[in-house]
This record gives sequence, C-alpha cells and structure tokens, in this order.
Amino acid sequence: MKKFDYSLRILPYIPFFYVIWSDDLLSTSEITVIQKNLDEDDSLTKDDKKLLSAWLKRDKPPADSEFKGWKLLVHNSGVKLIESDTYPLTALSQRMATYYKSNDAFNEQLKQIEINLGIQPNHYNHLFDVEVEHETTSDYYDAKEIDTTLKGKHAKLIDGFRAVLNDPLFDWDIHRTKEAFREVVLEQVKFLADRGYGAIAYPETYGGTNDMEGYAYMFENMMFVDGSLTIKFGVQFGLFGGSIQKLGTQKHHDRYLNATGKAELLGCFAMTETGHGSNVRGIKTTATYNKETDQLVVHTPGNNDNKEYIGNALHSKMASVFAQLIVNGKNEGVHAILVPVRDENHQLLPGIKIEDNGYKLGLNGVDNGKIWFHQVAVPRENLLNKYGTIKDDGSYHSDIKNPNKRFFTMLGTLVGGRICVARAGLGGAKMALAVAVKHALKRRQFNDSIKIQEDLLMDYPMHQLRLTPLVASAYVYHITLDKMMQDYCDDSQPDKRVVETQVAGLKSMVTWYANETIQECREACGGKGYLLENRIADLKGDVDIFTTFEGDNTVLLLLAAKGVLSDFKAEFNSSGFSSVLKLLSTQLSDKLATINPMYSNKVDAAHLYNPKFHKHAFDYRTRRLTYTLAMRIRDYIKKGMPSYQAFMKVQTHLITLGKAYATELAYNTFSDFVATMPDGKNKELFEKLGTLHALHEIRSDAHWYLEQGYIGNSKSKAIRSRVERLCTELRPHIEVLVDGWGIPESCMSAPIAKK
Amino acid sequence: MKKFDYSLRILPYIPFFYVIWSDDLLSTSEITVIQKNLDEDDSLTKDDKKLLSAWLKRDKPPADSEFKGWKLLVHNSGVKLIESDTYPLTALSQRMATYYKSNDAFNEQLKQIEINLGIQPNHYNHLFDVEVEHETTSDYYDAKEIDTTLKGKHAKLIDGFRAVLNDPLFDWDIHRTKEAFREVVLEQVKFLADRGYGAIAYPETYGGTNDMEGYAYMFENMMFVDGSLTIKFGVQFGLFGGSIQKLGTQKHHDRYLNATGKAELLGCFAMTETGHGSNVRGIKTTATYNKETDQLVVHTPGNNDNKEYIGNALHSKMASVFAQLIVNGKNEGVHAILVPVRDENHQLLPGIKIEDNGYKLGLNGVDNGKIWFHQVAVPRENLLNKYGTIKDDGSYHSDIKNPNKRFFTMLGTLVGGRICVARAGLGGAKMALAVAVKHALKRRQFNDSIKIQEDLLMDYPMHQLRLTPLVASAYVYHITLDKMMQDYCDDSQPDKRVVETQVAGLKSMVTWYANETIQECREACGGKGYLLENRIADLKGDVDIFTTFEGDNTVLLLLAAKGVLSDFKAEFNSSGFSSVLKLLSTQLSDKLATINPMYSNKVDAAHLYNPKFHKHAFDYRTRRLTYTLAMRIRDYIKKGMPSYQAFMKVQTHLITLGKAYATELAYNTFSDFVATMPDGKNKELFEKLGTLHALHEIRSDAHWYLEQGYIGNSKSKAIRSRVERLCTELRPHIEVLVDGWGIPESCMSAPIAKK
Repeated sequence: MKKFDYSLRILPYIPFFYVIWSDDLLSTSEITVIQKNLDEDDSLTKDDKKLLSAWLKRDKPPADSEFKGWKLLVHNSGVKLIESDTYPLTALSQRMATYYKSNDAFNEQLKQIEINLGIQPNHYNHLFDVEVEHETTSDYYDAKEIDTTLKGKHAKLIDGFRAVLNDPLFDWDIHRTKEAFREVVLEQVKFLADRGYGAIAYPETYGGTNDMEGYAYMFENMMFVDGSLTIKFGVQFGLFGGSIQKLGTQKHHDRYLNATGKAELLGCFAMTETGHGSNVRGIKTTATYNKETDQLVVHTPGNNDNKEYIGNALHSKMASVFAQLIVNGKNEGVHAILVPVRDENHQLLPGIKIEDNGYKLGLNGVDNGKIWFHQVAVPRENLLNKYGTIKDDGSYHSDIKNPNKRFFTMLGTLVGGRICVARAGLGGAKMALAVAVKHALKRRQFNDSIKIQEDLLMDYPMHQLRLTPLVASAYVYHITLDKMMQDYCDDSQPDKRVVETQVAGLKSMVTWYANETIQECREACGGKGYLLENRIADLKGDVDIFTTFEGDNTVLLLLAAKGVLSDFKAEFNSSGFSSVLKLLSTQLSDKLATINPMYSNKVDAAHLYNPKFHKHAFDYRTRRLTYTLAMRIRDYIKKGMPSYQAFMKVQTHLITLGKAYATELAYNTFSDFVATMPDGKNKELFEKLGTLHALHEIRSDAHWYLEQGYIGNSKSKAIRSRVERLCTELRPHIEVLVDGWGIPESCMSAPIAKK
Repeated sequence: MKKFDYSLRILPYIPFFYVIWSDDLLSTSEITVIQKNLDEDDSLTKDDKKLLSAWLKRDKPPADSEFKGWKLLVHNSGVKLIESDTYPLTALSQRMATYYKSNDAFNEQLKQIEINLGIQPNHYNHLFDVEVEHETTSDYYDAKEIDTTLKGKHAKLIDGFRAVLNDPLFDWDIHRTKEAFREVVLEQVKFLADRGYGAIAYPETYGGTNDMEGYAYMFENMMFVDGSLTIKFGVQFGLFGGSIQKLGTQKHHDRYLNATGKAELLGCFAMTETGHGSNVRGIKTTATYNKETDQLVVHTPGNNDNKEYIGNALHSKMASVFAQLIVNGKNEGVHAILVPVRDENHQLLPGIKIEDNGYKLGLNGVDNGKIWFHQVAVPRENLLNKYGTIKDDGSYHSDIKNPNKRFFTMLGTLVGGRICVARAGLGGAKMALAVAVKHALKRRQFNDSIKIQEDLLMDYPMHQLRLTPLVASAYVYHITLDKMMQDYCDDSQPDKRVVETQVAGLKSMVTWYANETIQECREACGGKGYLLENRIADLKGDVDIFTTFEGDNTVLLLLAAKGVLSDFKAEFNSSGFSSVLKLLSTQLSDKLATINPMYSNKVDAAHLYNPKFHKHAFDYRTRRLTYTLAMRIRDYIKKGMPSYQAFMKVQTHLITLGKAYATELAYNTFSDFVATMPDGKNKELFEKLGTLHALHEIRSDAHWYLEQGYIGNSKSKAIRSRVERLCTELRPHIEVLVDGWGIPESCMSAPIAKK
C-alpha cells in the first residue's frame, strides 16, 4: 500500500478533493465555500489548512500523480459508496477515515461542502474503484407532493377526473378502422358528459361550474388516454358549445347549452374553409338575410369554398357556421350562425352535403369532414348575436362599430381553445416522457468488458441530455399555461390583447416542444417506441397536427411578434400594419445598456444559476430583437417600400421575435410561481428545473447571444457544461419527476414502461 | 411629374441603384463589379461616372429622399417588369429609358452588372410599384437534364425501374389492416423479383448484374411508391439474400441465391434480440455443434432472448439466424446459420415459435415478428461459413484468428444495407419536398388589402427558408450516398474501416435530415399535409424508424467518432478503446492555425460563396473537435479514470464530432462531384445548391464557430442573410429542382400536388 504522505487529519478531505478536481467546474464561488469550511474546521491544524488551501488554486491544479494517489487511497480502504446515505460523500469519507484510523467523527464542514456544492453521487460514483450501492431512483422527493403542487386549486376536479378515466371504457386499444374508432371515442365523450365534465366551463345554470381553468387542465389528462378523445371532447364542448356560450345570447344558452354539455346535442364548429386555412376573414361562405322570410340563407358559393376539416362533422346534428353576414346587401363581416345539419334519424337535411375527410396521420377517432351548404335557410334567431345582431326591423346592429374590432373580439373569445390545445400537447409530451424515462430505467445496453451488468440507458450522459431538459420544460410550460388560462379568465382585465398575444406565442412554442419531445422519446425507446402498444407512436401521429390547428404556429408567431412590436396596441389577428407603424414612429429608442465584458464572461455557478441572469438574458433578447426589427421596418418604409412588403422582408425576423417573446414569458411566469412556493426541498427542485430549462433555452440561441456579444465564448461553453451537469444532478430524481405528473396507473399501459 | 435632376444618360442606371441600395448586402467585391462596368461604359461622361461612383460609398448611402425619387421615376414611366426577359432588370431599365427618351440602346454594362451580382427579379419585383409579369416557375433550367446528371451511370436501370413502378399494382392506396397490407406488399415484391430487380446486386450466375450501386438507387425510387415495399424488398434481397451472398460460400449460393432473388424462397434476417438491440455481440441465442449428429442446435435460452422485430418473419420459409457458435464447448463468437422455419404448407416447423409484432407507427405492410428457437437442429452445412467454418473433423476453423476482427468483418459486409436505408430516407424526403413545393406553388394565403389575389405560399420568405435549404441538402446527400456505395463496392480497397465510419455518420445524418424534412413539409402543407391521401403522413410514419434500425443513430455516431479519433485504425463497431488510447498517446498535436481576424470577419459574397471557405470551416470544426476530445480523454485517463468511464464522460462531445465529420464528408463529396461537371448553367446551379447547404450547416453550428472565434459576429449575421438571399434566388427554380428528382408521374398521387 502506498504510504500516506500527509497528516492523517486531512484524510477525510481526500475524497472531496478527488471529486472536485476530477471535473473542471471549480468556480470562484465554490472555492469560497470550501475555503470557508476549511477555515472553520477545528480538527485541522494551521499547516493542514495551508496544504489543503494550496490544492484549491485553479491555476495550479494537483499533479496527476497526486491525483492518482488519492484515488488509490480510497480504493485501498475497501469502503463502499452508499448512494442512499443522507450525505453519501461525507459518509464515505468517514468510513475511509475509520479504516485508516484517522479522525472518524462525522465532519460537519464536509457535510456543508457536500450540500453547498451540490455534490451528488451521480457525479462521482464512477470515479472511485469502489463498490457502489446504486439507486435506480431516489426517494428524496415525493411524487405526490409534486403532483399536489402542480394541481394547485384544481386538485379536487382533477383527482375526480382521473378516477373516472380509470373506467375500462378508457382502456387503451388499437382501432384501425376509423368508423369503429369513432364510435368508441363518441361513447367516451358521452360518458364524460354524463358525469358533468362536458359542461365544466359553462355557467351553473347549464350544468357547469364556470371552471374554464379546470376544463383546460382536463385536456392534459385526456391525452393520457387518447388524442382523439381529447380533440373530440374539445370540439363538442369547447368549440361548438363555446361558440354558443360566448358568441350567443341567453336565448341560445337556454335552448342549447344544457343539451350540448350533456352531449345530447352533438355539434361542430364550421369555420375553416378549403381555400382559406389561416385567413378566416377571407372565408367565402355567406349568410344572407332575407327580410321577407325573416331567415338567414347560408350558402357555399364555389366548390372549393366548403368548410374543411370540421371535427364531429359526421356525428353532428348542428353546426356553428362562420359566414360573411349580408344584411340589406351589405357585408357586415364574419358572424356565426347555428345551422341544423341532420334530422332525428341522422339523415342530412336538404341543402347540406357532408363528406368524410378520410384517414389522417393521427386522430382517426375524430370524424373530420367537409361541409357544403346550398341555400340553407334558418331563422334569424339562429345568428349568434352577442357582438352583432339583426334587429326586428331587419337592420343590422352592433355595439362594436369598427368591423375589424368586432371580428377580432369574436375571434378572441376562442383563444381559450388555443390554451387547451397547448395543454393537450403538453399532456402528450408528459406521457411520452414518462414512457421513455421508465423504459430507460429498466433497459440495459452495452457495458465495459469488466462489469457483468450492462448500464441502464438512463445512466448514459447522452440519454440524460436528450430527456432531462424536456422534463424540466414540461414543468415550466405546465405552470405557464395554468397562469395563461387564469389571465384569460380574469374578467377584471377586459382588454385581452396582451393575453391573446401571449397565447399565440405559447401555443406555438408548446406544441412544437410537444412534437420534438415525442420524437425524442420515440427514438430514445428504439424499436420498442415504434410499436403502437407502447403509446408513443399514436401520440406522435395525434400531436403532430396541434402545430397547425387552432392557428398555424408560424402565422401565430407572426401575430405575436406584431403584438410585441406594437406594444400590444395592435388589434390582434389584424393583417394591417398601421398601428405598428404608428408606434414605430414614436418609440424607437434602444434603451439597452451595453453589456459589460465582466458580465458577458461571468461563468461561475452562482451567476449561471441565478434567475436574474436568465431573466436578464431573455429580456435583453426580446428587446433587442424588437428594436432591430423596428429599425429595419422603418428603414424600408422610409425608402418608400409598401408596408405589406416591408413586413414580408422581415418575416423571419418576426418569427424569431415571436419565439423569443414566448420564451421569456414562459420562464418569467414559472419563475414568479416558484417564488411563491414555501421554502424547502420542493422549491429548490423547481428552481433547479427552471434553471435547466433556462440554460437550455439560452444554449439553443447561443449563436444569437454570441453575435450580440451578450455572452462571451467561455460563458457559452460554461452554459453547455452546466446543462449537462444539471441533467446528471437530476438523474436520481427523474422517475419521481415524471411520476409527479400524476398519470393514472390505468393509462400507463405501455409494456416497456412497466416494472 | 418630378423633375429629373441628373443627366439623362445616367437614367438607365437608376433602377439598378434603387435595387442595390434597397438591401444592405452591398459588399466590396460587388462595388468593384459595378465600378468596373461604370468605367467601361462609353455612354457616360466623366461627370456622370463621378456622380454614379459617389452613390457607391457604403459609408455614405443615398438619402431617403433621393431613393424615393428613383422609385417615382420608375413608377411614373409606367413600364412593366417581365420576369421571363433574359435580363429582366436591364430590359426594364431599357424600356424606362425609352419612355424618358434617354439612351435606349441595350446597355452591355448593365447586363454585366445584372449577371455578376446575380440580381434576380425575386429580389426586387416588389420594390417597384410597377406591373409585374410574374412566373410561378422559371424554365431556365431543365428538370430532365438535372435528373440525367443525378442518375449518372444508373440511368438505364433507373429509367426501367421507374417504368415498372408505373404498373397499377404500385398505385397508392390506404391499407388499414396489416394482414391485407402485407399481402399487397408481398405481391409487389414478387412482381419486382419476377422482373429481375431482386437479384440486381447478385452475381450474374444467380440472375443478377452485380450492381449493388444501382440496387441502392432503387431504394429512393421505391419510397416514391411506399415505405413498406422498400423495407420488405430490402429484408428479402438485401438482408436475407445478402447474408447468404456475403457470409455464405458457393454451396449456399448455388442452393439458395437464385430462389431468393426470385422471391421463391422468402427469408428473414434474425439478428436483433429483445434484450440486445444495439449490442449484437451480446446476443444470447446459441448454435451448438453436436458432433455425433453433425448438426447445429439453435436455441433461445431465456424467454426474452428471442429474435425481435424481424421483418418478413410471417412470410418466411427460412431465417438467417445470428447466434453464438459453440463448438467443442468453446464459444467462437457470433455466426449466421440458415434455419428453415416453415414447411411447404407454411406451417411452423417443430421448435420454432413466431409471434406477430403487431401494429407499428408505420411500415405496417412489413410483417415484423418475434422468433424463438427451441433446440432446433440443422445440418452443419447450414452454417454460413465464409469467415468461420466447422471442418469435417468437427473442429472450428477461421482464417481470421482474432475473434473481434472476425466479428467486425462479418458485420462489415452488412454496411451496404445502411447506405440503402439512408437512400430510402432520402427518397422519402424528396417525395415530401416535391409535394410541399408543388402545394406551395398552388396555394395562396393572405394578401395586402390592395391586391385581389393572395400570395402564393412559396413567395413567403419564411416558407422559402423552411423548404429551400432542405431541397439543396437533398442534392448534396444524393451525390454523397452514391459515392459512398461506390467506395463500399470498390474491391481494390479491401480495408473497409474508413467507409464503415463514413457510412455510420452519414446514415445518422441523412435519416435525421429525412425526418426533419418530412415534418417540415407536413407543417408547410397545413391540415392538408395531415391527410393520408397527400402522402406525407405515411412517409412520416415509415421513415421515423430509419433513425433506429440498421444501427441506432446515436450509437452509430459514437462509432463514427471513435473511427475519426483513432484515425480510422480502430476496429469498427468495437466497444474497446485501446486502439484509440494508443493513438492518443502519440498524435496529440493541434496543428490548426489561429484564425486571422481578417478572415473571421470577411463578409463579402465572393468569400462566403467560395467552396474553399466552406471546406475550411468544416475541416477546422472536425479537427478542432477531434483535438479537444482527445485532450479531454487523455486528461481523464491520466487522472486514473477507467477508459470506459472516460468515454462516458465525453459522450456528448463524441456525438458532436460524429456529426461534424459527416457534415464535412457530405459537403466535400458533393463539392468534388460538382468540380467534375461540365461548365455551364447546370454546374452553376449545383454550385449554388452546395453553397446554400454549406452556409445553412455553418449557420446551424454558428454558436460553435463563434465560440471558437472562427467566425466573428458580423460574419455570422452575414451568413444568415446569405442563406435567406440564396433561398430567394432559388425561388423561381424550386419546382424544377424537385422535378429534377424524376419522381414518376404515377407516384405523384397527392391531390394537393396536382396542378
């Protein structure tokens, strides 16, 4: 055995120094922590402290031979590393000291170092040649507590809802023919309606509890069962029912809302047309008022002007049809009209033509169809007339005089649906992550030639890096979407332009995130992920279209950017640029301070983990992009370019701004939420998740921050290292993190995710 | 009308200066071009030239008022912009001069400027308020010529093959039940086999033409029909047949190869096991030689040691089974054995159990299954014994003494399949791009409030940016994969370690590219892209698994990186690190020159478009990553860390290196190919595609190049601008570019892609 050259008193420090120097992450603030504890350790002499301090110099790292000697010391002691110890490294150190008959009291200073540096067995258990008592999962955190935090005030509703999903009717199965699949989904929707869930967002008079926020939460949970159920549910109660609730008046509510909430009246939401996907204002269907008969005549003018992709089209008795309302020869703009489409025997009514859209990549349990109207007359009262009505004298009236504003007000009432789609996307991502993580904690692959057992997939750094930031982001988006719905439902804030802009950005970001996540999970599960039985495949097909419906993501980001650019003064959804241009002429000043090189090269953990840094970075990016964008547009306009063309030329810049804004918003919302959590380990965990998400986002846009000089080269590299480090730190808790989403056991049917 | 303040002689230059100054891309080299032509223009006086030269100062741009005056001049002349003119801007300028009674001769200098600056109507047609005669597609290039270039020496085979695909048997249709789908696909495979395509890669004696390169090309074309056909075809002729051809000896060829090529003997390739996806060396199935009966007994030891995901398993009569060969109690490593699995009545033979893998995300026309063997005895001669045999005396013999090397030699013969998978992925990407581009040239969406007609999707900058670089990359990968197969088939190069490394990297890169492309196309087609009838949905489901089978992409990238790190000396596929470590100790020297700030901030077009710059950037990245990686590993080893752990710690770095290497390889291969093309417009087009691909790649890794100081901030921004610019320049030719892939008319069945 190698002779130990130093005082036996310093021996307990050896494993710590070995761990500290094995990576190159020792920062100033960490050295300070160690130094402070060294100074306070009474078991050490002045000379011991001097020696140990000498090993803390970053410009003079210990020699390799010294380093190897440390390792041998640990090795020769034959101690065991027990990951479940409260302070595993301190305990290992203590056991080693016992072996060498050194000071074997539990060392409070070492414990402090272990805590404050966040040293985790994961970082170092492979560094020693000692036996490791390994944990697949740590029980330091409690999944139930996390779930409770996430559910917040919705706990009662969600717990009840999850219990209902336990019914065998919701058991996962394969449905290959759309007709049979649709029947199952319809039955599921009716089952939920029978138990009052369809009407949740409606007023109490109509069987509900006015709980739009809880309604959105249910979307996540329905995705654990099936995407088709989620969307069909949303079409019936949110789109069809929502249009009656929000665009209709009391006569409509009284007549239809009860039956709609109970799924006794099935309806569809006929807005999109084949020729006009994203441009709702340009739809061609007309609803012409005929004063003599006191009827509205709904009509599809051209063969390609049909309603397209209408969910519930094959099951519906009624459609909420968006059409150009023409009264006395004047087009009053887009309005919604209730049009019966089938009789009691489910036969199409005269003038109605409906065709099945056929098979799709996913969501084949949803009956999407095309609808044509040929001069279909309905009574005047079928106009959903909250924002615009036809009076008894046959004249049109609206309290909102400006037709643009009227249109955007009507559309604004539907923004809740966008939050639900994002929420559903998030549910899909959670489900896929839960399957992939549980598989990775079971599946072993490869090994070195020495060990008998192959490593768990989850212990591969690459696997940690591909899944862990996605898990963290799910937490951030969960909190953010909850808050969005709260703001959207807040009647004390009647001007919804800000929240509409925010939802536009977030819906895009979250649905893209969901798609990327599901894809990453599919690949992380290898060939097994490709089998339908393991659930990820269906999620991939179902969630795909979330990037397109309820607003194409690219179009939404352009709208979000325009909102930001106009300081949220622009009418949302407007295709005009005048309000933006007006603002540009007044408010172009870049108030951003120049970035101090000290700041742009600050790499220590305390700084990189500080939410202030993240917020500053995101804020800087949004503001800088806004300013440069405004400058570009102004220059084009000055040169005489038409505003429409000027906006075309900066389109990619607009998209970037839209994303940047959404990124900032999500992080700030999450960060504000965490600040309200009671102090304790759960709060720290959420802080860590926020940090990982933030650094991962900054890393994704590192080229931009570098171009701007906001971060220097070393900082950029340090951020990458920290992202990988955080993934490793969260490794022991990854199963608890996915369990924290409360996915009902009955939904975790994937064979690869079972123990 | 505004008075014209300048000499009428300079009037023809006005539209040019207007266009030049409308963007901020004027670089030194472009100024030189203009200046030179000004100097040479005899129609100008000295004073005229002085005035025009004054307008070329980048630090003193013309005033906005001047700029607006120019625009008004063009506008007031009432001329038309005709995009189909050979030199549209010069022609516009000439017409304007005629109107103002200025010098209206065709100006040779202006033509030179137009050509040399690459000024295209797309850049400026929206800048003038004049009537534009717009072309949806330019006919400057000829799709047939492009197709001919791409087909190269395979033209005859491919033309014939495409004609065969015209048979109604290959018409696209929806197949929801796997059983029916599999029957159709089997019939298609047999149809192709009947016409000799199954045996193409086999020797002439067995019905083939020894044309492995042509065989790979067919994979792209089969994807235009259907992914299941492609994969089933590959399993039957490439994997099953290929194992007989490459691992067997003449007796096997004589007995089985003919029938295999004709699809009279259907077989499967039973390598992967449930418990061992990527780690082939760890498979558990055994083949034990029984000397008394002179038989090999094939056996699945544990319930989870079954063969998994075996394509063609339900249709096969025979399996090529990979198993640990045990002779005289000694494990000689993995070998392949032919095992009959069904009798003439298609009944399973004793000891064989086969289960359907069930429904998958895609490829449901391929019958994947699980196979268990219970003490199945086959004659000794069923051992595919090219690399290891059992002699008549019952002893094992191999010419390759080293068992590792033997194993890797056997696996190496299967690398051709990886190229075919990449090729199939590329075919899927091409198909999706063709559909998305054709849709974008038909579909209109939004408009300004003035124009009646909405803009074509393809005219949106964001749409150009999302599709055009992907189109360019398809060209790069096409050429690269062609070359890879050529190298792989080159018998004058017996050491395949380099090409194996290259294929590993490229297979990963191309299959990921294919998935991203298909997703981008799906979203670019909106809801229509989600319908099965438009083909993208199936491609998405089918191509997904290409990232996993024939080698998981992540695992392959790790292998590729190890190859690069060991200077291609490591045994490919080896899990050991000794050869890498040996090399690390000798060759660690960073010969990379420091980057000159002049270079890292060079932003003019001539430099950014120069292949030398691209090659230098890619080479720098690969070498730098190799060096830093080697340094990290060496440091870990020096500190005493076991090599397996050291490699774990640098896993993400390895992946980055693997990608960087593949990126460099693809570009260099393409660039070398373009250099051999005859001078002319097609060569220029290919050069432009290469440039767009290269700049797009550099842009994707901009954070890294910035971190290294390889590119400065302004260069990074200039690259982004150039990428967008190139997309715009290629806009008029985008349809020709997708038509250049020669997708048979009969395969372009997507309704949204039809005129």
